[in-house]
Amino acid sequence: MIGHQRVRDEEGGSARLLALSDGVFAIALTLLALDISVPAGLNPAGFRHALGDVTPNVWAYALSFLVIAAFWRGHHQIFQYTSEVDGTVIRLGLLSLGLVALMPFPTTLLAEYGDQPQAVAVYCGAVAAMGAAQLALTVALWKRPWLCSAALPDPVVRNDVIDLASTVLVFAVAVPLAFVSPTGAKLWWAVLIPVKWVTGRRGKRLRVAAQQPGAT
Amino acid sequence: MIGHQRVRDEEGGSARLLALSDGVFAIALTLLALDISVPAGLNPAGFRHALGDVTPNVWAYALSFLVIAAFWRGHHQIFQYTSEVDGTVIRLGLLSLGLVALMPFPTTLLAEYGDQPQAVAVYCGAVAAMGAAQLALTVALWKRPWLCSAALPDPVVRNDVIDLASTVLVFAVAVPLAFVSPTGAKLWWAVLIPVKWVTGRRGKRLRVAAQQPGAT
Amino acid sequence: MIGHQRVRDEEGGSARLLALSDGVFAIALTLLALDISVPAGLNPAGFRHALGDVTPNVWAYALSFLVIAAFWRGHHQIFQYTSEVDGTVIRLGLLSLGLVALMPFPTTLLAEYGDQPQAVAVYCGAVAAMGAAQLALTVALWKRPWLCSAALPDPVVRNDVIDLASTVLVFAVAVPLAFVSPTGAKLWWAVLIPVKWVTGRRGKRLRVAAQQPGAT
Amino acid sequence: MIGHQRVRDEEGGSARLLALSDGVFAIALTLLALDISVPAGLNPAGFRHALGDVTPNVWAYALSFLVIAAFWRGHHQIFQYTSEVDGTVIRLGLLSLGLVALMPFPTTLLAEYGDQPQAVAVYCGAVAAMGAAQLALTVALWKRPWLCSAALPDPVVRNDVIDLASTVLVFAVAVPLAFVSPTGAKLWWAVLIPVKWVTGRRGKRLRVAAQQPGAT
Repeated sequence: MIGHQRVRDEEGGSARLLALSDGVFAIALTLLALDISVPAGLNPAGFRHALGDVTPNVWAYALSFLVIAAFWRGHHQIFQYTSEVDGTVIRLGLLSLGLVALMPFPTTLLAEYGDQPQAVAVYCGAVAAMGAAQLALTVALWKRPWLCSAALPDPVVRNDVIDLASTVLVFAVAVPLAFVSPTGAKLWWAVLIPVKWVTGRRGKRLRVAAQQPGAT
Repeated sequence: MIGHQRVRDEEGGSARLLALSDGVFAIALTLLALDISVPAGLNPAGFRHALGDVTPNVWAYALSFLVIAAFWRGHHQIFQYTSEVDGTVIRLGLLSLGLVALMPFPTTLLAEYGDQPQAVAVYCGAVAAMGAAQLALTVALWKRPWLCSAALPDPVVRNDVIDLASTVLVFAVAVPLAFVSPTGAKLWWAVLIPVKWVTGRRGKRLRVAAQQPGAT
Repeated sequence: MIGHQRVRDEEGGSARLLALSDGVFAIALTLLALDISVPAGLNPAGFRHALGDVTPNVWAYALSFLVIAAFWRGHHQIFQYTSEVDGTVIRLGLLSLGLVALMPFPTTLLAEYGDQPQAVAVYCGAVAAMGAAQLALTVALWKRPWLCSAALPDPVVRNDVIDLASTVLVFAVAVPLAFVSPTGAKLWWAVLIPVKWVTGRRGKRLRVAAQQPGAT
Repeated sequence: MIGHQRVRDEEGGSARLLALSDGVFAIALTLLALDISVPAGLNPAGFRHALGDVTPNVWAYALSFLVIAAFWRGHHQIFQYTSEVDGTVIRLGLLSLGLVALMPFPTTLLAEYGDQPQAVAVYCGAVAAMGAAQLALTVALWKRPWLCSAALPDPVVRNDVIDLASTVLVFAVAVPLAFVSPTGAKLWWAVLIPVKWVTGRRGKRLRVAAQQPGAT
């Protein structure tokens, strides 16, 4: 207690930050799909051709939807027991949303110029930045138990931190890799599949354990 | 109890998944209308002509609004008594939203290329996929009564499942049909009118019964 | 009781319908402004000229913002004491949202082709339709006191109905008027200013009276 | 009491005004980023060039995100203890949202024509107007303690008023300044950095004091 007097500067409940966040996530998810379009007024052959050209946009949409949805789920988990927010949490939360709102741009780049090193590098950089912001937010909430109605069990948070840190690491490494080989960078992302599988299962097991009667 | 130990891995209340869902539904509904537009700077005759050309877009908007609004109402009904969500429900819920967010694209296709088999097939496929995702979500919630504050009466859920399954079936059958005749596929949709009328009335009757004192 | 057995088919609380509505209102309000833009890459003189050309779009935005905001405020008032919704309320609520979501289109028409009878007529028709849907919703809620946590005082609702009906009437009359004179139709809207002033003041007085101790 | 009889015309809880506000803020924040785009179908050299041209849009996005996020945080603070709203608060709240929804337009102007006096002046005018509306809203809530569940301590509100008034002043002064020198006007904004630093620290200190046991 002495030496590190906790300064309480709560700025009220977390409801509105979560409402704003869910709004930005919902819009970013929906705007991603705006990029999937076919010009009007083509003849039948031109239309069929244009429809085929839309395929990379559909894949880029699916990928970015998966990425943003995964970040939303993480956001949902870290705010699960948070009842109050302070200045730092609001600032980190807004920074995180600013990066989520940007996602439609790198997604379009990836769909249209997926063979260009710069496009792949921008995409990887955007995901890494979004992950880093969410990691900072996770750690900030972890260090402020007084904002929470119930303490998140340490092993659960530690697992979440490892999960986010590995996402940041994989996408950050992919930035320089994209300049060596854009395709190589995309294949490198697959490293996350086993990592996510392990952290996902461990997270589930830890959460189940925490909810059993007699748990912390 | 023994043999099938229920694993509880709730990830918190359903409030945020519903907030995200309402956001995505609201945006998808509103973006549908963005397609209705007239180029700027036309002369009076050109303007009147362009205004007439907008008619198929208005019809496509009305149709897709009806479809998405019906899915929203179904979503509202299945989550009515849900108070908690787990990983599976979140994953199916997000998948469902990803398909809702896609809807503006097939709607535009239908408005601009409604006489092309591919456009009609893509539209039917998108609606069938959205229906299948919502069907999976409905069944998942039905099989997880521990996530609900009150059990949905079995006959109500069974009626909802029949309603959704018939939507999926009609639109899935319309996909190959569109390649035979795009107009035929659209007329085939009308099969859903009596089906919806019957399931709608039965659903209402079952719900009224469930709310009467002395009911389950 | 006898002779008109009330059928209860509530489909749950009003929270999600209101969340969807606030979402659609928020997006429609924001998309209105998307039409205000200047092409990129002009020279300084061209830029100043294009900036001047944006003025009618700003006026159309202000007008439609006012209209949609007024409808939102009315929506807020009629749902103030509503705690449950049933099938009819959901259907009317969704119809109403479908018309709100359409508003960016007639707004653009008015900004770009405000001197064309068809553009003014479409705008007036859209506002009249939106008003009629909200009027139907208001009457439906008034006739279903069992959905409300507290009864809205009859004089307050009657005043709201007069207010909405006069909006519908003025804009419906403006549709044929626009074909006689687009400018005349726009001047005719000004009739609503004194009407709204009177109903607004009366509504405030009635609400104050209803909130005084000993009222109802 | 006598001489100034308080007229209560509450129009219900603040929940829906806040939901609409969070929606408009979320959409405005996300639409800001739509301006960051690269045309499709360029060759590698053209693509790299176009990607470089996007830099001013990214800066304008970051600046406007910061501005809108700061306004959202202020909005969050002033509504923290508000539980009811009346006609004046709704009107000022909606006016404020109308100006927030406009922000994507001046942001694009600044990104595309940042060296033109008119573009900088429009941007400054838009931020000043948004600040003035929020200032009016803050004062209106301060003067209506009966709408609040707990009184905001006077020093906290006074600090918020100074903070907003200084934002309005700096951006209003920048409007004529932009016609002398667009770059000068942008450098002048930096005056706000120390002002915000001081009001931010004071606000935090005052809030901490107000939350200590035995305060107010």
